Amino acid sequence: MATSTTTGAASLEDPKTLIARLRSGDVRALARAISLVENDAPGAADVLSGCFPYTGQALRIGLTGAPGAGKSTLVDLLARHYRAQSESVGIVAVDPTSPFTGGAILGDRIRMQSHHADPGLYIRSMATRGFLGGLASTTADIASIVEASGKTRLMIETVGVGQDEVDIVRLADVTVVILVPGLGDDVQSIKAGILEIADIFVVNKSDREGADRVEREIRAMQSLGDHAEGWVPPVVRTVASTGEGTTALAETIERCAQWLRESGKLEQKRTAAWQQRLLEMVRQRLTRELVQHHLGTSELATYARAVAARDEDPYVLVERLVRGLVDLHSGESRPSI
Amino acid sequence: MATSTTTGAASLEDPKTLIARLRSGDVRALARAISLVENDAPGAADVLSGCFPYTGQALRIGLTGAPGAGKSTLVDLLARHYRAQSESVGIVAVDPTSPFTGGAILGDRIRMQSHHADPGLYIRSMATRGFLGGLASTTADIASIVEASGKTRLMIETVGVGQDEVDIVRLADVTVVILVPGLGDDVQSIKAGILEIADIFVVNKSDREGADRVEREIRAMQSLGDHAEGWVPPVVRTVASTGEGTTALAETIERCAQWLRESGKLEQKRTAAWQQRLLEMVRQRLTRELVQHHLGTSELATYARAVAARDEDPYVLVERLVRGLVDLHSGESRPSI
Repeated sequence: MATSTTTGAASLEDPKTLIARLRSGDVRALARAISLVENDAPGAADVLSGCFPYTGQALRIGLTGAPGAGKSTLVDLLARHYRAQSESVGIVAVDPTSPFTGGAILGDRIRMQSHHADPGLYIRSMATRGFLGGLASTTADIASIVEASGKTRLMIETVGVGQDEVDIVRLADVTVVILVPGLGDDVQSIKAGILEIADIFVVNKSDREGADRVEREIRAMQSLGDHAEGWVPPVVRTVASTGEGTTALAETIERCAQWLRESGKLEQKRTAAWQQRLLEMVRQRLTRELVQHHLGTSELATYARAVAARDEDPYVLVERLVRGLVDLHSGESRPSI
Repeated sequence: MATSTTTGAASLEDPKTLIARLRSGDVRALARAISLVENDAPGAADVLSGCFPYTGQALRIGLTGAPGAGKSTLVDLLARHYRAQSESVGIVAVDPTSPFTGGAILGDRIRMQSHHADPGLYIRSMATRGFLGGLASTTADIASIVEASGKTRLMIETVGVGQDEVDIVRLADVTVVILVPGLGDDVQSIKAGILEIADIFVVNKSDREGADRVEREIRAMQSLGDHAEGWVPPVVRTVASTGEGTTALAETIERCAQWLRESGKLEQKRTAAWQQRLLEMVRQRLTRELVQHHLGTSELATYARAVAARDEDPYVLVERLVRGLVDLHSGESRPSI
């Protein structure tokens, strides 16, 4: 077992203590655990292993849409709705624009204030850079820690632009795709990928002109697909600025979750998500091994110079490096598992 | 050497023939070589190795900006400018929204038509999904093939949203960041990442209200940074709809390239880019090894089910799998390199 040595004192640094504290509702311990994982710090693996048994019960809701579609407002409305139903809520907001804006932390503060430090609600924004293991994998890890703190509804919110974001949403149980009239004029043009990942469509700002058209176009493209699986993604209209449609959306999410559970699709979906994550985790682990022990910055720089000077063919070099990694490894003593 | 067996007939399938043909200006051979690499088909590594000696001479220009900033139009204008100067031009356009739109191919056709099948110009759009080796790495490979076909100016165009796109632009020699008045109201908010990657700022649609403000804000944020390296990213104003500013932009790009060459920064930049790419290529190679020989779909599915059922701790499992991979390997015969 990969249990780290624990310090004598029951400090926050000790993964077991940290988990006990975050389980008891200590928000600072929760934030500290997340930071450990975000920074890939020592103890991160133990924290994740320690949290793992307390996961798998919450409903994970992925929400995605174009910038300006009103995702955050809708997520906040859902959070209020869930809190009124005594569900505890975790929100992980992934902002792909933050490498440019640096705005994630500020956003957290503004949003947290509007919830008056409700202990049943936790919001964490993530920037999208510097995660060795891939953004989707790190997001899933953080969602697990938030869930382990006792949350029953997890919302994962992201702009649906890059592949990273699509991968994130794939990790959810129920995926909500948010559209608005007048933004992308033509829903036909977002057909392909959306059809694949959406469990529920939201037409937000539906008091605007063009809402009928957006809904009609969603329906039209659905009539082209076959829904042999038995769930035709419904269209829910909302006006996030007034809160209209929030209850209907929450009910539709629950209905979808119930269908997923009863049809066995939930298990299938989660297994598929783990398949993807396990592969990414192995990749990450191998990369760390590589960087730490076999292909450090100075070696890499030497190879890069040789390639840039055309003294070395990168495709041949990589083949040789991979063989080298394997050979280096075979000489090591094998740990017993 | 990683040379594949070649078929007797000099078919397009034979990497050597394919390279000879694409070098001689055969556009179909070029397209075929790119497809091999995009699909990670047999022979892809040989095609890349074969193209490699013919790369490193072209100037690589990365262009990025928000959706609607006018990137494509500006790239087309630059292409015309370069063609008028008898430079041959390759364009690789990466469209992160195409998982949703599926619009990449159509876009190519529309754009190619406007250039009347000029043999000195090649445009390739890439979707952003399904690249085992990472989008940036695949984009760089494709740019290399296009360059090997004899192009002297390579433009790599992408929406500057996700991390993938930032990574792509980092592979360029000269990076152009395109802003427009009125889109993102406040340039201050895109300060952090932009300052890092921009060699040149373009204020496009500069006939619109607010162009002065955008330029002023760029200048203001530049005054905060230190430019000890000796190149302060200039601001070029363009109006892509009329072509205004295209020559000034092209001249600024050449001036930047010259400075990079003379200061030794070009070599540094390219070495840094190769450092990043080599690591990604090794990751990719290890992942393929993993999926093909050690962690096939059925094994992965079995593990995923166990994890989803909480019978297995994924963090412990991954550690075991990585050790297993290494052990499996050590028993194999070592190929001579």
